[in-house]
Amino acid sequence: MPSDLRKGRRLLIPAVLVAAGLAVAAAGAGQGDAKSASPIFGVTVPDGYRSWQLIAPALEGEPLNELRAVVGNDIAVRASARGTVPFPDGTVLVKLAWKRVPSPEFEPATVPGRATTVQVMVKDATRYAATGGWGFGRFIDGEPVDEAQHETCFACHEARVKDRDFVFTRYAP
Amino acid sequence: MPSDLRKGRRLLIPAVLVAAGLAVAAAGAGQGDAKSASPIFGVTVPDGYRSWQLIAPALEGEPLNELRAVVGNDIAVRASARGTVPFPDGTVLVKLAWKRVPSPEFEPATVPGRATTVQVMVKDATRYAATGGWGFGRFIDGEPVDEAQHETCFACHEARVKDRDFVFTRYAP
Repeated sequence: MPSDLRKGRRLLIPAVLVAAGLAVAAAGAGQGDAKSASPIFGVTVPDGYRSWQLIAPALEGEPLNELRAVVGNDIAVRASARGTVPFPDGTVLVKLAWKRVPSPEFEPATVPGRATTVQVMVKDATRYAATGGWGFGRFIDGEPVDEAQHETCFACHEARVKDRDFVFTRYAP
Repeated sequence: MPSDLRKGRRLLIPAVLVAAGLAVAAAGAGQGDAKSASPIFGVTVPDGYRSWQLIAPALEGEPLNELRAVVGNDIAVRASARGTVPFPDGTVLVKLAWKRVPSPEFEPATVPGRATTVQVMVKDATRYAATGGWGFGRFIDGEPVDEAQHETCFACHEARVKDRDFVFTRYAP
């Protein structure tokens, strides 16, 4: 069936280009799944984080106007619930964020709208010794934001929550 | 030692009364752990709910001013993430709530303060046929609030989100 064959060839070329593009992206960031590694820190969005336990929700005011939820892997949740610092190596915290929108069914309530950023903190006291033991990643649609934004992460955490091992979020009882 | 014996007897009587009271409460609600079963529905706070997956956070405005987070058991999360209704029997949704307080370290943010209520919805289309298949429980410090408050649950859910199987909360992407 020549027409099906032609269709097959037309589909093949974009598929090869996409595969090549992925390979280049992976090589460029120097990691297996490097397409999504943050600059400076090489932090990636962890698999399965959406099913991790809740540490606490939050509301971010103007100008962002976002509902937030910080979740953590098991190491993070245990340490956070006990309130002990510093967090152990292997701790991973992920902050999900959504624009806040009025509930369509209940006027006094605000609920999550469009997802905005996913922000990740990974504890590795050796690898990230220069930044309090933490690696940072800030992602939009799964892709890291630029290096300039990543340069601001530690400075803010250091200025505000150094005595809490650089972590803002407390475990919500 | 007679004085210790007398003290022992004085303590024994309240203990017996408490035990009897618990037995009566248990019989009244028709459940094993009836101390904490809601009136009308006999819903209890499920074990381990604090480690359940997040469905969505929310903000409740005046007069409550609370941060909320709805978590669910595996059945609830699967159904909620797919957005299909009705929810299957066995679905359990738990809403945690805290007073909202300003973050002590970051001015634009609001974070959880004191925990206020825990609210539970249990799906059992047979047992709760009269209320859309849902049993409700509202708890403060682990104890259910009174019957009058529980009479309002279904009326509000029915009036506002009947076409969503009586569930307000949507899965946050």
